[in-house]
Amino acid sequence: MNFASDNAAVIAPEIFDAIARANDGYSLAYGNDDSTRALERRMSEFFEREVAIFLVATGTAANALAVAHFCQPWNAVLCHEASHLMTDEAGAPEFYGGGIKLVGIAGENGKIAPASLRDMIGRGRGVPHSVIPGIVSLSQSTEFGTVYRNDEVTALAEIAHERGLSVHMDGARLANALVRNNGTPADATWKAGVDVLSFGATKNGALAAEAVVFFDPGKAAGMASRRKRSGQLFSKHRFFAAQFDAYLKDGLWLKLARRANMAAADLALGLAESGLPPIWPVEANEVFVQLPAATDKRLRAAGATYVSWPPEFLPAGTPALADHKLVRLVTSFATTDADVKRFVATTRGT
Amino acid sequence: MNFASDNAAVIAPEIFDAIARANDGYSLAYGNDDSTRALERRMSEFFEREVAIFLVATGTAANALAVAHFCQPWNAVLCHEASHLMTDEAGAPEFYGGGIKLVGIAGENGKIAPASLRDMIGRGRGVPHSVIPGIVSLSQSTEFGTVYRNDEVTALAEIAHERGLSVHMDGARLANALVRNNGTPADATWKAGVDVLSFGATKNGALAAEAVVFFDPGKAAGMASRRKRSGQLFSKHRFFAAQFDAYLKDGLWLKLARRANMAAADLALGLAESGLPPIWPVEANEVFVQLPAATDKRLRAAGATYVSWPPEFLPAGTPALADHKLVRLVTSFATTDADVKRFVATTRGT
Amino acid sequence: MNFASDNAAVIAPEIFDAIARANDGYSLAYGNDDSTRALERRMSEFFEREVAIFLVATGTAANALAVAHFCQPWNAVLCHEASHLMTDEAGAPEFYGGGIKLVGIAGENGKIAPASLRDMIGRGRGVPHSVIPGIVSLSQSTEFGTVYRNDEVTALAEIAHERGLSVHMDGARLANALVRNNGTPADATWKAGVDVLSFGATKNGALAAEAVVFFDPGKAAGMASRRKRSGQLFSKHRFFAAQFDAYLKDGLWLKLARRANMAAADLALGLAESGLPPIWPVEANEVFVQLPAATDKRLRAAGATYVSWPPEFLPAGTPALADHKLVRLVTSFATTDADVKRFVATTRGT
Amino acid sequence: MNFASDNAAVIAPEIFDAIARANDGYSLAYGNDDSTRALERRMSEFFEREVAIFLVATGTAANALAVAHFCQPWNAVLCHEASHLMTDEAGAPEFYGGGIKLVGIAGENGKIAPASLRDMIGRGRGVPHSVIPGIVSLSQSTEFGTVYRNDEVTALAEIAHERGLSVHMDGARLANALVRNNGTPADATWKAGVDVLSFGATKNGALAAEAVVFFDPGKAAGMASRRKRSGQLFSKHRFFAAQFDAYLKDGLWLKLARRANMAAADLALGLAESGLPPIWPVEANEVFVQLPAATDKRLRAAGATYVSWPPEFLPAGTPALADHKLVRLVTSFATTDADVKRFVATTRGT
Repeated sequence: MNFASDNAAVIAPEIFDAIARANDGYSLAYGNDDSTRALERRMSEFFEREVAIFLVATGTAANALAVAHFCQPWNAVLCHEASHLMTDEAGAPEFYGGGIKLVGIAGENGKIAPASLRDMIGRGRGVPHSVIPGIVSLSQSTEFGTVYRNDEVTALAEIAHERGLSVHMDGARLANALVRNNGTPADATWKAGVDVLSFGATKNGALAAEAVVFFDPGKAAGMASRRKRSGQLFSKHRFFAAQFDAYLKDGLWLKLARRANMAAADLALGLAESGLPPIWPVEANEVFVQLPAATDKRLRAAGATYVSWPPEFLPAGTPALADHKLVRLVTSFATTDADVKRFVATTRGT
Repeated sequence: MNFASDNAAVIAPEIFDAIARANDGYSLAYGNDDSTRALERRMSEFFEREVAIFLVATGTAANALAVAHFCQPWNAVLCHEASHLMTDEAGAPEFYGGGIKLVGIAGENGKIAPASLRDMIGRGRGVPHSVIPGIVSLSQSTEFGTVYRNDEVTALAEIAHERGLSVHMDGARLANALVRNNGTPADATWKAGVDVLSFGATKNGALAAEAVVFFDPGKAAGMASRRKRSGQLFSKHRFFAAQFDAYLKDGLWLKLARRANMAAADLALGLAESGLPPIWPVEANEVFVQLPAATDKRLRAAGATYVSWPPEFLPAGTPALADHKLVRLVTSFATTDADVKRFVATTRGT
Repeated sequence: MNFASDNAAVIAPEIFDAIARANDGYSLAYGNDDSTRALERRMSEFFEREVAIFLVATGTAANALAVAHFCQPWNAVLCHEASHLMTDEAGAPEFYGGGIKLVGIAGENGKIAPASLRDMIGRGRGVPHSVIPGIVSLSQSTEFGTVYRNDEVTALAEIAHERGLSVHMDGARLANALVRNNGTPADATWKAGVDVLSFGATKNGALAAEAVVFFDPGKAAGMASRRKRSGQLFSKHRFFAAQFDAYLKDGLWLKLARRANMAAADLALGLAESGLPPIWPVEANEVFVQLPAATDKRLRAAGATYVSWPPEFLPAGTPALADHKLVRLVTSFATTDADVKRFVATTRGT
Repeated sequence: MNFASDNAAVIAPEIFDAIARANDGYSLAYGNDDSTRALERRMSEFFEREVAIFLVATGTAANALAVAHFCQPWNAVLCHEASHLMTDEAGAPEFYGGGIKLVGIAGENGKIAPASLRDMIGRGRGVPHSVIPGIVSLSQSTEFGTVYRNDEVTALAEIAHERGLSVHMDGARLANALVRNNGTPADATWKAGVDVLSFGATKNGALAAEAVVFFDPGKAAGMASRRKRSGQLFSKHRFFAAQFDAYLKDGLWLKLARRANMAAADLALGLAESGLPPIWPVEANEVFVQLPAATDKRLRAAGATYVSWPPEFLPAGTPALADHKLVRLVTSFATTDADVKRFVATTRGT
């Protein structure tokens, strides 16, 4: 009953096999190898246009590199106030961006509303006193397990572009959102106005595979140097390219994410029926609930694993219940029906 | 009728004379001169304890150097969401601090409330995911022209120190606050728990005189290098030391700030009587009002100078009035009674 | 005949197997897992004292994090003018260190001489004008494939420590040096005065396993946050811990490095007999020679892979030969005797 | 007998008077004032083309802002190994540039030779491993008191531009060089290929007046924000504009620099006749000599002030004499003939 994080799961067999296959013979280091070239082609097919990609070690690095590349140090990154970028990366974007400022925007269900974005862009005392909004970062799926519809992304991107801002998508859980939205990867990203994507596979079955994807390769100038000096250019690059290649091949990403999302939906349904309704709509692979202390204790005793969530994130209309704890439950491709059932049953004390 | 900023005023005669007197003979560059030594002694007397001081070019530099010196790059600076540090320094603290994060705290009248500070320090997902609060920055007087009482500062400093945070005071307008609070400089700063102060004289009569003041000189280790590499070590340092020396001599700072504060009080009273009540309590040298468009036009036509203020700063209970403009009126030692009277009269159309 | 880099080789079977074994069940993310705990214990045994370790993605990251952690931004890193840190990391140390300066020291055979270190530390115009030497970085083995004897490290470390500098060892190829010096890992590092080590396993058989090792865990305070904000904290951390664990187990590191060093020795011998003497003493797993253009052509035609080396690195007494090319040949655990023999034979045109 | 630095001198009377005149009435802060506008016009006339200028507090800031603005963080600044930028700014360029690397080039008389520049640009292992040369910085006059002829600047600028690098001139003592070269300011700068200039007036009679001058205003985009966040935007900007305006008016800069240069020439002549030949050609306002210990003692006793210079800067062919000290003697507009004569006489013990 591990619901601590999708990061706690194993490597998907298909991806592990790809690493094993890559472990043969010599291959030039630092991305000058055939499998990296092959991945570039596959990624371009996946997104239905030529893209420039840069593999990196972590989602934090992908996000920080992406926003830094589209900002001058005096720019601001507009993002949801509860986004991973804002709260969970120990200041990585600020570091990579040479001291850029992250500006949080409040918004229901972890999503930014168009009016709020428009308002925030218009604020401030102007140049040179205020920082200048440079990029909007959208998390897909969001930190609360919700998903922007593609037209919602489009609406935000239009506002951003009209005002000269770029659009970044933090796709650490992009696959889970794609499954929800039923569109193509192209629809979800550049066709909706995304300029640069942090594309994660680690949470959905890879060992460590994260990419920064530029939908306009012309905007990637300098990124090779930027990645290298960030300590993000793997020497045995082929093993990272191989993971992503397997991830995209034959719709593996889709298969894995679908399983994770379905497990979350089942879990949410079961919990709701136990009187534990989700705090936010369950649209990807995360379920947030307030657990009674006794239930929490029972679950822990039964070996369930999950993390507490800071109560400051509870929505305005949802009071913190006495003797309850806000928790996050994350499913993955490895989550079994049995785990879900047992967890739900344990909440019922049955 | 110039109410644009206290920065728009001239140099106070006593300070100008000090520059003139300093302009005689040779003097070692970079602060290795007698007048700098003399200022250090005077500053220590002023604060009733040994302090370490570093003169810099601007208030922005003083603030940025001060908070950077007390933070590791992964620390957060907690400050009021409308503080100058947060909104008006183009990201200087982030730059000087190697990518530190500024975290804004909401609070009435431009002041941070103890409960809000306590709450904010307690937030987050912990190390290594979240940035770690490292310092609290308090503006005295605040960006809205209000003033913390000394015991309010003490209460916040105690919360900060208990949790391992340092306390910075942005004293770009410290003199105006001191006049209001009637205490000694020591009471207003280190006795209330302030660890490091940005002490400004420029807005109150100097040409350019800003100091970072360490109340524990032992904590200033490395600051000489930090200032130099920031491009903030003046070569002809004596002329900057001389300004501050004159500023502190014979209570000049007090005389100048008192005049500014009194002018603001008169202005606020006059405007209130004209049906234009101040948005925030007028406790220092700034008055904020919502001006009807017609009044604004009349004032501009009469040659009045002042700046519009971003409407997003209006307090929750104060709606933006239709056909009104939020404006900031700043007085200085150079503001005349005649200017105040004429401004008020013009608002009345008389 | 791949001599391009030890990074071009496969994963050693023992290490690959460890990854496979780790791929089972759930494991808390971000290093909060049992295998990471186990590695910490094994690493402490390996070095015969309690160490603090931080796994990161690349050697560049390990180096940059290590030197940044021991420096204030106004410190200088003293290193060999041809060190990897200085020439091959695209400015990573400068980036991670918030703008630290790298100061190159010339020295025979890629090594720093004690007198040169002493001289460089004594230079400059003093605080606050000059940067302050903060750390010495030694590469072991060096960029030219030579190895410091342990007493040479000790001599340099003593000079550094006497003057308040810390000592970093770039051990991207530490195993190759250990094999050469025949001492224990403790002898080669902290007993010789090393404060912090970049310990690499990737070039010697891992997929991606690099560690920053603190020999005084007390000096690692803050490093967890520093690593996270650098995007260097792997989520599926167990797979990286497992590699290092296998690397250290049963002397695998030794077995792999020995093979690499022997291949290099054989290669150097063979080339010398062909009239192609090594530019620098061959003490680890790298051989540098000046190849006649015709030989280079013949080797390339035969499928040999290796990289050209910038001619500016040739030692003072060694002129660049006309119609020759300076090349670097790197062996690894995967280099076969057959490859070495065929390469040598090809140089002879036989 | 103060030869410590031109920074130790007073403010020139004409410049002081300009400050006094500016001290009248209100003036918008932060450079939005008439005197700043007027200076922009005068500066454009001075350089015979439209320029964009940014006044800052110190020469260090001017240099650091200028090179940072023309570099990405992974670029290198090529400069003379003994330049002020390299040795005396405590790492300011590295800080402002987000971790750029400074690469020192050796060269006779403090000047870079074309062949050396060409060679250095061609070095390295290429992208993404090596930093990329982004800008060449030339000091005019140099740190050793020598002066590039305009055609020497042109030759270096052509090499730089051909290879895509920009050209910066550190003109902290530009006036002294202009006097020597007899050309126009335009000849000395943009006509010779300079893209951006640090233009200093402080060492030549101002209180504190340093400007970054862009010869192509289109390249200054973003500089207003960059300056502000560096804490380099003075609030009472008019007093800094006024200094520069007076400096350029009626050839004051020329008059002041001529006096300084002539004093240096006299000093050098006198010392040479005393058997103390200058280490480097005396072409501006600095004289370097090796003083016998007894002479040094006699001079100090007589009240002479000057600074020792690090012996590592002695040219290759000039051995450090036993019982001698390398010293720097700087003249300024305020140096009197009497001071020069007395200094020379004291060296003779007469």
